Amino acid sequence: MRIDIISVLPELMESPFHTSILKRAMDKGLAEVHFHHLRDWAINKHRQIDDEPYGGGAGMVMMIEPIDKCISELKSQREYDEVIYLTPDGVTLNQKIANSLSIKNNLIFLCGHYKGIDQRVRDLHITKEISIGDYVLTGGELAACVLADSIIRLLPGVLNDEQSALTDSFQDDLLSPPIYTRPESYKGLEVPKILLSGNLGKIEEWRHDEAVRITKEKRPDLL
Amino acid sequence: MRIDIISVLPELMESPFHTSILKRAMDKGLAEVHFHHLRDWAINKHRQIDDEPYGGGAGMVMMIEPIDKCISELKSQREYDEVIYLTPDGVTLNQKIANSLSIKNNLIFLCGHYKGIDQRVRDLHITKEISIGDYVLTGGELAACVLADSIIRLLPGVLNDEQSALTDSFQDDLLSPPIYTRPESYKGLEVPKILLSGNLGKIEEWRHDEAVRITKEKRPDLL
Repeated sequence: MRIDIISVLPELMESPFHTSILKRAMDKGLAEVHFHHLRDWAINKHRQIDDEPYGGGAGMVMMIEPIDKCISELKSQREYDEVIYLTPDGVTLNQKIANSLSIKNNLIFLCGHYKGIDQRVRDLHITKEISIGDYVLTGGELAACVLADSIIRLLPGVLNDEQSALTDSFQDDLLSPPIYTRPESYKGLEVPKILLSGNLGKIEEWRHDEAVRITKEKRPDLL
Repeated sequence: MRIDIISVLPELMESPFHTSILKRAMDKGLAEVHFHHLRDWAINKHRQIDDEPYGGGAGMVMMIEPIDKCISELKSQREYDEVIYLTPDGVTLNQKIANSLSIKNNLIFLCGHYKGIDQRVRDLHITKEISIGDYVLTGGELAACVLADSIIRLLPGVLNDEQSALTDSFQDDLLSPPIYTRPESYKGLEVPKILLSGNLGKIEEWRHDEAVRITKEKRPDLL
């Protein structure tokens, strides 16, 4: 999988892509991530990429021309499955969307900034608008990191067995049951006896019941 | 505001906190962020912080002792308003939660990793469990960055006027209307005439109508 990320602040994304699972996926050649600094496609020597909104109002708008030039150049080099704009008014990311994007080959992520992008970029290039949640962030950069992480960890070979994604929350519409590790007793807090019983059938049953109970209690909308 | 972040991968969070708005907030002394490497509170010379789950199953569990020691030490130094565990089975973050956290003084963020933390850490210390969305990430580190960004940008003095948070999506339960900037015409795509009219009353009316239309179309659940 190849992901091209277009941003005015690529340096914000440095450490997440150089650490842990994302780094491992890239080192193994399972994912390629390329950053494109939008100012490299600026329209003038001031490296301008934003301007005031027509009709007035607060905030700057990211201009169509630099973005169009950048995306057009990328599209001339290969076919993209999706051109994704990270924006709070997009479709809310969930595990199903992450799963479906994890089987694509080439993706472009465009990070919004300031008040957002000229509407005509959406009309011309964007095939999918994704929000990571109902809250406002400074820019689309952290959202791009989150989206990339949620997708890339699903690529075959990225996680080792022990990190198996299959028992994670959301993959079966249930939240996880409580988990415990050593010591058995800590400051008077005990591990539930059933988990020490060695009866694997009973343990699985207990875990399922707990997962259902917790999901009912915390997130009935998932059931 | 002071935020203490406990993690096994603090290096993942380096660039987001050294760039843009988060950096500015810290440079101005409006926010203080301290990272705590969980392995500094490990229980043995192997710097162990995780162990196998009682009852069997895939994945490692973050042990109670290192986390308890770290949080207890922080709590002995000052009062914390909330000890927040970033986890996919927490309450889903939204703008209201970000707003309410932005008026607190001292917060602890605990980043989950592997299969999660020993349940007894939750019972003992955690006052709030927050998820940034219904998808699985490699760890709580990106979630901590997202939560910190959503909160810190709301602190008075962090954003300048031009970045005014008041007209952002979610602050008024409406998505943003389309925005445009120069040029007026680009590859046959035109700016809506109303925005060039100079009639501010009509423009505000159009923007409100468009915001309602777009919210109805994309996110009727917000209305």
